[in-house]
Amino acid sequence: MQVSSGQTWTVGVTGATGYAGGEVCRLLAGHPHLRLAGVHANTSAGRRLGELQPHLTPYADMVVQPSDAASLAGYDVVVLALPHGESAAIAAQLPDDVLVIDCGADHRLNDPAAWARWYGGEHAGHWPYGLPELPGQREQLATARRIAVPGCYPTSVTLAMAPALDHRLVTPDIVVVAASGTSGAGKSAKTHLLGSEVMGSASAYGVGGVHRHTPEMVQNLSQAAGTNVTVSFTPTLVPMSRGILATCSAPLAPGVDAATARAAYAAAYDDEPFVHLLPEGQWPTTAAVLGANTVQLQLAVDPDAGRLVVVAAVDNLTKGTAGAALQCANLALGLPETTGLPLVGVAP
Amino acid sequence: MQVSSGQTWTVGVTGATGYAGGEVCRLLAGHPHLRLAGVHANTSAGRRLGELQPHLTPYADMVVQPSDAASLAGYDVVVLALPHGESAAIAAQLPDDVLVIDCGADHRLNDPAAWARWYGGEHAGHWPYGLPELPGQREQLATARRIAVPGCYPTSVTLAMAPALDHRLVTPDIVVVAASGTSGAGKSAKTHLLGSEVMGSASAYGVGGVHRHTPEMVQNLSQAAGTNVTVSFTPTLVPMSRGILATCSAPLAPGVDAATARAAYAAAYDDEPFVHLLPEGQWPTTAAVLGANTVQLQLAVDPDAGRLVVVAAVDNLTKGTAGAALQCANLALGLPETTGLPLVGVAP
Amino acid sequence: MQVSSGQTWTVGVTGATGYAGGEVCRLLAGHPHLRLAGVHANTSAGRRLGELQPHLTPYADMVVQPSDAASLAGYDVVVLALPHGESAAIAAQLPDDVLVIDCGADHRLNDPAAWARWYGGEHAGHWPYGLPELPGQREQLATARRIAVPGCYPTSVTLAMAPALDHRLVTPDIVVVAASGTSGAGKSAKTHLLGSEVMGSASAYGVGGVHRHTPEMVQNLSQAAGTNVTVSFTPTLVPMSRGILATCSAPLAPGVDAATARAAYAAAYDDEPFVHLLPEGQWPTTAAVLGANTVQLQLAVDPDAGRLVVVAAVDNLTKGTAGAALQCANLALGLPETTGLPLVGVAP
Amino acid sequence: MQVSSGQTWTVGVTGATGYAGGEVCRLLAGHPHLRLAGVHANTSAGRRLGELQPHLTPYADMVVQPSDAASLAGYDVVVLALPHGESAAIAAQLPDDVLVIDCGADHRLNDPAAWARWYGGEHAGHWPYGLPELPGQREQLATARRIAVPGCYPTSVTLAMAPALDHRLVTPDIVVVAASGTSGAGKSAKTHLLGSEVMGSASAYGVGGVHRHTPEMVQNLSQAAGTNVTVSFTPTLVPMSRGILATCSAPLAPGVDAATARAAYAAAYDDEPFVHLLPEGQWPTTAAVLGANTVQLQLAVDPDAGRLVVVAAVDNLTKGTAGAALQCANLALGLPETTGLPLVGVAP
Repeated sequence: MQVSSGQTWTVGVTGATGYAGGEVCRLLAGHPHLRLAGVHANTSAGRRLGELQPHLTPYADMVVQPSDAASLAGYDVVVLALPHGESAAIAAQLPDDVLVIDCGADHRLNDPAAWARWYGGEHAGHWPYGLPELPGQREQLATARRIAVPGCYPTSVTLAMAPALDHRLVTPDIVVVAASGTSGAGKSAKTHLLGSEVMGSASAYGVGGVHRHTPEMVQNLSQAAGTNVTVSFTPTLVPMSRGILATCSAPLAPGVDAATARAAYAAAYDDEPFVHLLPEGQWPTTAAVLGANTVQLQLAVDPDAGRLVVVAAVDNLTKGTAGAALQCANLALGLPETTGLPLVGVAP
Repeated sequence: MQVSSGQTWTVGVTGATGYAGGEVCRLLAGHPHLRLAGVHANTSAGRRLGELQPHLTPYADMVVQPSDAASLAGYDVVVLALPHGESAAIAAQLPDDVLVIDCGADHRLNDPAAWARWYGGEHAGHWPYGLPELPGQREQLATARRIAVPGCYPTSVTLAMAPALDHRLVTPDIVVVAASGTSGAGKSAKTHLLGSEVMGSASAYGVGGVHRHTPEMVQNLSQAAGTNVTVSFTPTLVPMSRGILATCSAPLAPGVDAATARAAYAAAYDDEPFVHLLPEGQWPTTAAVLGANTVQLQLAVDPDAGRLVVVAAVDNLTKGTAGAALQCANLALGLPETTGLPLVGVAP
Repeated sequence: MQVSSGQTWTVGVTGATGYAGGEVCRLLAGHPHLRLAGVHANTSAGRRLGELQPHLTPYADMVVQPSDAASLAGYDVVVLALPHGESAAIAAQLPDDVLVIDCGADHRLNDPAAWARWYGGEHAGHWPYGLPELPGQREQLATARRIAVPGCYPTSVTLAMAPALDHRLVTPDIVVVAASGTSGAGKSAKTHLLGSEVMGSASAYGVGGVHRHTPEMVQNLSQAAGTNVTVSFTPTLVPMSRGILATCSAPLAPGVDAATARAAYAAAYDDEPFVHLLPEGQWPTTAAVLGANTVQLQLAVDPDAGRLVVVAAVDNLTKGTAGAALQCANLALGLPETTGLPLVGVAP
Repeated sequence: MQVSSGQTWTVGVTGATGYAGGEVCRLLAGHPHLRLAGVHANTSAGRRLGELQPHLTPYADMVVQPSDAASLAGYDVVVLALPHGESAAIAAQLPDDVLVIDCGADHRLNDPAAWARWYGGEHAGHWPYGLPELPGQREQLATARRIAVPGCYPTSVTLAMAPALDHRLVTPDIVVVAASGTSGAGKSAKTHLLGSEVMGSASAYGVGGVHRHTPEMVQNLSQAAGTNVTVSFTPTLVPMSRGILATCSAPLAPGVDAATARAAYAAAYDDEPFVHLLPEGQWPTTAAVLGANTVQLQLAVDPDAGRLVVVAAVDNLTKGTAGAALQCANLALGLPETTGLPLVGVAP
């Protein structure tokens, strides 16, 4: 399929007043073939978008519309940036040929039992998983009309550890500690997320394997490993708005050295447009990927501790959510995968 | 002049390893007609750009070249992001038909005496001033081949107060206090700019009318007023990387009320693509313009104190420097002025 | 009066779960003669203080009690850190010999008409004003049993400009732009105070003379000037938890030069334990006074603009609120004024 | 030994112009029996301390003296806050009865081979290790006249994992990822530590077991375990000035559950004045211990991953360095261990 230079698809975004939805709108402003045609939200219907998202200057005068299937009808593409549990009902009422991209959790897990354990209630079913960098995934996404965008933590952790498991560099017991900016916690006003609380402070939460992104990591990494993996995942909150720095490690398999490990990662990612294995000696920083659809990776072998350590930096709102959504839309619409997606971080 | 969709100009950037030069490169990555063809710097020649500017992923493998006129020959456009005092000598050796854009101070001041007082030494002469929003300036820039980009503080302060002076809303005694992010102080390692020093701290510097951007503000605002103005300017450093929030005020002229003032600003800026007078009740935030070539403005009349107060937010590196450089390049090359320039801030 | 080394007074703090009340508790932990005997709050009664104020480790197991006069009976000293409008009713029910210190606004303004204009409703009457550095104020506070602690902005601005007005260094038209940390906005969860919103962003609010601290500044500075002053006050929010940096200026009176100005400030503050006029060339930073009851001041004369510029740094929660409360308590209880109050900032 | 209320010891601090030395001075300002009698530094001799450490207001007029043994003679206590490799020569020239406390690394490692591998050169010998919370350590410190203060990372990690190893809750393969504020990297001006670089960014460094604090952790935890342990340690830099959040985990030993684990930690720390095992459900934050000599700990058992996870928060400059130095001084001088040490964090 050939896309003509003037062709555009209309996009409706719901949850547009939140952080993930706002980021979808921001990226659409730079996309040559996708046009933001409507903004929707559960609350705030009737207000100017500019009041709620003052950075979205070109869209300031758009009026927020309700977030129901009727209001969302008529777009070529619908992006759902809603709390989990709200996507399935809307998607079911949209025509099959509308491209629906869910930034929420509803359709990420394959296993209904996992859904029931971690989220509760009945599973809405799983959709093609929007991480094109996984083997075979691009092909699936090219024909999909329903796509589940990965969680921000799983994106970073999966990209960091899948090659190690795929190439049997490590045994399948993964330990992850990830530092996240506060936007990952959303835009609801909560005391512990106030600026006064988070500036100058690092804190842990969801410790002990209870964070809901854990089963998604386990699912992805078990597929990569071809066996069940365990993931000990500890998220921490650090004083920045955006960004995830995931430090991942696992016991080295016998005979694996730094060169072997590096070669496996190079093989996995050298052709990937959005995943950058840094030159030796350079370590990822979240600032370098801020606002970009880019992942920075680096790895080290620790012979004393007998572990492979891989560090990944992503912007939780861009490659971690909204950028992935548009990357998948590009694939599903037959556009070059990188169309309209920033590769350069906003630094310093 | 009509620009065909495939036409490109090559751009060489010197000072590309610093903050202003890095931002020029970042913006070039999103520009459809300008292509970053070479990166240069006073030091670091021979190193990979990726080591020094890890956010410039697509340019990571470019090798830094020396910053002299010979090395800078052959580009269609040369952007100089150098310390003041270094531009004139290089520009003099570049052909007249090369578009040279100076992000430094050398060619901003019209008055050699002002140059001598504030910078010392002989004045290199002034170039067309790169603030297209000033009356008559666009026309001048359209034919220019040498352009002096304004300082970041003068950009915010001039846009904030020129309409008030032009419309005689105030008497010409301006008081400005501006909060700036730390990137305005550059990338040289200095103790007082360490993260440990600046996080959690606000501080004043250059107090009492001694900051070198003062004469540039006086020059611009005197032109707008048609008379000599005074500017009391106090810059402060606040804990963020980017952004300027300039709070400007002056005594109200007799009979001026809020409606009059608002009408004058609307008249000045309603057709400007990059200057946004916010709706009443909404105040500028630097986050809303982060990474964007946008200025947010708001004003208030204080009848008790008898003053007009205008607040402007800009990103010092984007509209305050690199974005302005490309905006001017667009004009000088016959491109639509907004080509390739982000209007949306990177928030949250 | 002589205080024996073992003498202690019991203190009850209401609003102890908020930022101001929490800071009172923090400072009490270092005070040799004041003992935190009870913590109270409008909400949260029955909860462990440690859940709500995790930094108050030694008091973690204290249980929050209700905030009413009956619950607050029996303490030697009661500190009210409540929203405005709530102090008067409680204070009226406490015995006259209990030392009651109000960190809120209820009893700061002398003029009932000013109260009605700025806060609305009936004025509760004014109490001795807790800024001992003002002429004659110490004597009044020594015998007071009801004390109104100044607002954080007025503390910084009054100390910055009172000597200039008192010594007729300037004409009485003051312009103030103050950068404040977010804790000044309190601990209520509001979207615009989320960490994601405030980190990386400076913003203005309450522009145009509408901030409620304005009449308190006018009152204090008019007293210092012996005439009515005007104050153009613009507060701004910058990305830090604590601290105010107030940049204040006014037109120089004829014949005033830097030496005259400096001498006036030295005369005013050389004997003050908490106000530090910095050596020439050194400018205040809020980090240097973080957590301390110290004010840093510096001044400059701008002959071009014809203005005196004075910059003050205070910690809004310490010298701006809770430290001032204990400084006043020391005076009222016959203790040395500096007892138990930190002079050293927590930096870096 | 009984200390009379008026007894004081004089203290000389070298490295007083750096972050660790400055923190020693700050804490001395609140100590009733230790008096800062002289400040010394390798460079800056002859300058006012106030220029270099503007937060140390009461000491602003002290003049910095040279950092050599002759200049440091005559104090009762000498605190060395110098780069590693500089302490031994000075200490050797000070009389044996002077209490010398080294905040640097020179005397922490027991094994000369470990010193040679990690620091290079000849080992200066080890001194009693200044972590009183380790079994038997208090007794040793009570009679010591030479004390090696632990590194900031080892303090947090040792306190976090020693009980688990001592009680055989885990097998001895520890994984640590620690988020640190930038003050741990010192006050030397380096580009990657500029505010512009660190604000808004998280980054990893010293990955793969190469950080010099690793052998100190291995030493401490091997002692606690009674066997050799491995430690995979990854330090990360996050945008705050102070604080370490260490997330530590290890494989659960058979039969260990949450209650067993909690009981072991309660037994280890219930009587410790500076180590606080938080109530269940509350997680450490570095803000809660900012400026305090307090450690906050919490733990969780992850049955899916089969790991015990322990999170510790300390202020790297206080309990991580200068507070530990004074805690040890208290012990060595026969003072109550908590004398003059803040327990309350400076929050928000």
